[in-house]
Amino acid sequence: MDIEKDVTPGENIHQLMADLYPFFRSITGDGVRATLKGVKEHVPLEIHEVPTGTKVFDWEVPKEWNIRDAYIKDPKGEKIVDFRNSNLHVLNYSVPVNRKVSFDELKKHLHYLPDYPDWIPYRTSYFKEDWGFCITYNQYQSLEDGTYEVVIDSTLEPGHLTYGEVFLKGATDDEVLISTHVCHPSLCNDNLSGIGVSTFLIKELQKRKLRYSYRFLFIPATIGSITWLSINRDHAGKIRHGLVATLLGDTGPFHYKKSRRGDAEIDIVVEYVLKRHNPANEILEFFPYGYDERQYCSPGFNLPVGRLTRALYAEFPEYHTSGDNLEFVKPACLEESLNLYLEIVEILEGNNTYLNLNPFCEPQLGRRGLYSLTGGSVQGKDFQLALLWVLSSSDGRHSLLDIARKANIDFSTIKLAAEKLMENDLLGEKNGK
Amino acid sequence: MDIEKDVTPGENIHQLMADLYPFFRSITGDGVRATLKGVKEHVPLEIHEVPTGTKVFDWEVPKEWNIRDAYIKDPKGEKIVDFRNSNLHVLNYSVPVNRKVSFDELKKHLHYLPDYPDWIPYRTSYFKEDWGFCITYNQYQSLEDGTYEVVIDSTLEPGHLTYGEVFLKGATDDEVLISTHVCHPSLCNDNLSGIGVSTFLIKELQKRKLRYSYRFLFIPATIGSITWLSINRDHAGKIRHGLVATLLGDTGPFHYKKSRRGDAEIDIVVEYVLKRHNPANEILEFFPYGYDERQYCSPGFNLPVGRLTRALYAEFPEYHTSGDNLEFVKPACLEESLNLYLEIVEILEGNNTYLNLNPFCEPQLGRRGLYSLTGGSVQGKDFQLALLWVLSSSDGRHSLLDIARKANIDFSTIKLAAEKLMENDLLGEKNGK
Amino acid sequence: MDIEKDVTPGENIHQLMADLYPFFRSITGDGVRATLKGVKEHVPLEIHEVPTGTKVFDWEVPKEWNIRDAYIKDPKGEKIVDFRNSNLHVLNYSVPVNRKVSFDELKKHLHYLPDYPDWIPYRTSYFKEDWGFCITYNQYQSLEDGTYEVVIDSTLEPGHLTYGEVFLKGATDDEVLISTHVCHPSLCNDNLSGIGVSTFLIKELQKRKLRYSYRFLFIPATIGSITWLSINRDHAGKIRHGLVATLLGDTGPFHYKKSRRGDAEIDIVVEYVLKRHNPANEILEFFPYGYDERQYCSPGFNLPVGRLTRALYAEFPEYHTSGDNLEFVKPACLEESLNLYLEIVEILEGNNTYLNLNPFCEPQLGRRGLYSLTGGSVQGKDFQLALLWVLSSSDGRHSLLDIARKANIDFSTIKLAAEKLMENDLLGEKNGK
Repeated sequence: MDIEKDVTPGENIHQLMADLYPFFRSITGDGVRATLKGVKEHVPLEIHEVPTGTKVFDWEVPKEWNIRDAYIKDPKGEKIVDFRNSNLHVLNYSVPVNRKVSFDELKKHLHYLPDYPDWIPYRTSYFKEDWGFCITYNQYQSLEDGTYEVVIDSTLEPGHLTYGEVFLKGATDDEVLISTHVCHPSLCNDNLSGIGVSTFLIKELQKRKLRYSYRFLFIPATIGSITWLSINRDHAGKIRHGLVATLLGDTGPFHYKKSRRGDAEIDIVVEYVLKRHNPANEILEFFPYGYDERQYCSPGFNLPVGRLTRALYAEFPEYHTSGDNLEFVKPACLEESLNLYLEIVEILEGNNTYLNLNPFCEPQLGRRGLYSLTGGSVQGKDFQLALLWVLSSSDGRHSLLDIARKANIDFSTIKLAAEKLMENDLLGEKNGK
Repeated sequence: MDIEKDVTPGENIHQLMADLYPFFRSITGDGVRATLKGVKEHVPLEIHEVPTGTKVFDWEVPKEWNIRDAYIKDPKGEKIVDFRNSNLHVLNYSVPVNRKVSFDELKKHLHYLPDYPDWIPYRTSYFKEDWGFCITYNQYQSLEDGTYEVVIDSTLEPGHLTYGEVFLKGATDDEVLISTHVCHPSLCNDNLSGIGVSTFLIKELQKRKLRYSYRFLFIPATIGSITWLSINRDHAGKIRHGLVATLLGDTGPFHYKKSRRGDAEIDIVVEYVLKRHNPANEILEFFPYGYDERQYCSPGFNLPVGRLTRALYAEFPEYHTSGDNLEFVKPACLEESLNLYLEIVEILEGNNTYLNLNPFCEPQLGRRGLYSLTGGSVQGKDFQLALLWVLSSSDGRHSLLDIARKANIDFSTIKLAAEKLMENDLLGEKNGK
Repeated sequence: MDIEKDVTPGENIHQLMADLYPFFRSITGDGVRATLKGVKEHVPLEIHEVPTGTKVFDWEVPKEWNIRDAYIKDPKGEKIVDFRNSNLHVLNYSVPVNRKVSFDELKKHLHYLPDYPDWIPYRTSYFKEDWGFCITYNQYQSLEDGTYEVVIDSTLEPGHLTYGEVFLKGATDDEVLISTHVCHPSLCNDNLSGIGVSTFLIKELQKRKLRYSYRFLFIPATIGSITWLSINRDHAGKIRHGLVATLLGDTGPFHYKKSRRGDAEIDIVVEYVLKRHNPANEILEFFPYGYDERQYCSPGFNLPVGRLTRALYAEFPEYHTSGDNLEFVKPACLEESLNLYLEIVEILEGNNTYLNLNPFCEPQLGRRGLYSLTGGSVQGKDFQLALLWVLSSSDGRHSLLDIARKANIDFSTIKLAAEKLMENDLLGEKNGK
């Protein structure tokens, strides 16, 4: 896979999504493996295989599902539905079938969308053994009475659940978790966008010196996060901040769903970033349904993990249909999402709490040349005020982000002020971290 | 007293009020006794007699007042005011009088309402020895000069203060207090409505298995609650929730005055119920004047007792006049008040705090059939969400009402979800209660 | 200095300001001494001299600056700028100069205001050795090419920093600090108004029996408060409440900048007073720039010191120009400021926390004549309610001001109610103070 050097980061993400688009993903099986292999071409992904039947809290790892072929032939013997054209055509986790059925029986196994007659719906039956096909409503209306041949050449057998993990070691063992699901077939916003943005976020972080360690999970939804948490139960306490990354390619504003704690540092950081970027961005209180944040935030774990998306789960028409395709997601939007995640990382990395080392009256800044720093990229007046705010608020109880919010000054200016004060021995770190 | 079985609860309450309407109530005396006897025909009322002179905190039980006859004869010898026509005609607690007076002297003892010329005012003089008559302004204007005969055949002598008490034992000793005053003569909203609604609330609670014990007080205002608290000072700590029940028959929205604590469970429960019923219902912060909540919430006791009325004390024209009569109060409104009290009781009874017994990741609800419960009286989607909310929030720090408020789902649905989860051993009680 | 007895307090303040107006004040020097001498004619001011070079935290006391003469002569030898006409004409802290300069060189040392062509700006150069003149823009435009003679006969030599202090001993050692700066030359709102109001506030407080001790500082800005705090570091903890008094003569509404604590008693008291006086008055959260509150509120001290002004620092056109003169400040506004400070003092003095000595049920107020107190200056109904509010809330956790705010009753009525209840042994002080 060659990525040209003069394309934009958003185009790179989009190209990776296009590469992964055709694979027939499900919660288990070779489609997930192919997807993870594609990601591994970009980043140092470790692939884990967990055997069917493994107990994972209240659940167990299901049988592995694979599919080789699936089609419907009409009464004239013509192949009118072929999963090679769209992997959405098959009800995900369909049991094998190979027989002739009447139109009346076939109809019970057909899924379509009368409101969106050009789109194929995406349907699954993980926990109830069933078979079925998904087609457009237009095609459905063209079908005539007669005997149809239906073939689904699938297997549902003991095997493995597969997931991928990237770990970037930072200066401390405290971890930032980014989790994205990999179980949806040819759907782009949900969730090739999450896979793509996470992959290129990893590539960016590899270039940096990091305070936190970063753990990226590429997992099937629900059963994947449950499996990871079950295997890593004692490790979960190291997660200091986390985000579920999904729905990152559409053109709408961002939505952040807070962690169950509601006042975790990640909640404050993301709200700060979103509100400064676009007043249309929205912050939602935690609710116990949605994506994998349900598991990370279950009361036994109660991890500081929020969810940062553009569109909202199930609230856009293309959701879980063939309309969520490579045209629906835009390189510029993917890139904006990547940059937003990077900005969040920057603040997490820099959000220390300091102590004013000269707390009795103000220090004489002029003597140290800190009243002349007016040029360059930093706006002079804000920088002068930032120095005073950092000195005034650095009593060990306010982080730099707390100060930025109180002062209504950009975090990066506050951070620069802190650095200049440290260079002048006027500010010290609260603790060794 | 026969109550027909096919009349509505509101009509039953109204009929009881009509039965009690004629008695000449005051803070002591036979009118109170007759009233309590009337209530006792419906519910197991215990009647207490406290002797005159008993010290009750900073007060003492006053002399007992009784009246046999009272009238004014005009210069022609015609009885123009007769307390047998309306017991409001006599200034409550009037000392005896039997003499001829000039019109000028009589006028000093007459009370009337120029703004409401058809209504007789209700006036008292408990703490200053005086006599007087209350008449309509129309009648006052028709009076002519001359010598009048005034007779008040009353006694103010050592006796007793009388109050009634109903105790319904529940599973625990923790008590819910409902207090209503019984000292007003022929006035309906203030407060035969409180007597009527309390009586029929008792009858409803007698049919149920109760978690809390319920204590109903039928007492003269102020001196009655002071007396009860003085006698039961050490017992008061058992009161976990309480309401002063009064002004419950008019057609206006409800008003809840919070307990002095302001954040007691009763405050939260009543606010929740009122706001879901009608946005016009109002919640008021505590203030130290009004009815008997003044005493229950005095700082030495500071009991979690609020006041739930329809109209507000002194803020409707009929207040303390003959306009507050049997027509002013409506059976449908009395019934709505009764139902609201019952709904509050339901929530108090059911508002437990539970623990998710499977707190690490979500339990597999489908395996337990909890994803198919969609029919019946419970709306399917809300019930599904309720299961997730109860699991997510049951960490021992959120009651079911806390969860209902956070989820914006009806309490009864949240409660049903908790019951189903308990049946499946997914939820346990926080403590033995 | 004779002050006529029939002039208003506002006129007295204005007269004192007029007396002090001509002195050439700076952060050190004889202008400050003359000013303090003028104040000392009214109140028992103690004058302190701190030698040049004294280390005061991160700073040191600067050399003392004095000036005897300063002028510019035009090419024709005419004195066109003379500091005897306005002491704003000289750049404050100018080094000595006596030479002929070309117009081009002169221009580099001239300061003027194109937007306000009739006003002379006020400029300083305390920390960078420089010389300069300040003139109106109109005069600047009239200057022609040629050789000018510039003379500044000043000295910058080891000497002293001078400040004044008035201490009024009250019943306790707990102190209220009022700080005002004395370093600005002929400018009235900033800050002869602070000097004038503080002086007459002292004269008022001398007439009273005080609970708190009061400390008034007359200091040069920044270096003065740093110096005082350095000398009195261990004493600063006695300061229980404080205000920086400045900008008190203009016609605008009041602005209160909270202490860094944000919830200090002084913050609550001033907000209460300002909001009751005029809804246009504004309350500002603390920010770490402005006047001497910067030093009092530095994190090592974090004293409960706010700033109470009319106009806001740097936000009125006359700020730091010759437009801030004796006409700009109004006797009526100065008097209103004085009265507001006095009202704040009254509340600080009276804002005790009491205990209801009869906390179980209400006491019988009628028996003690407390239901008949309806005449006089106190409005009857509010006083009756105030009695009930004080009894209800005096549980040791609510001060009288807390009660006044909750009850929405004037502080003075609440205070009177508390006094009457104490006379009747119904209320006691929480502690010995």
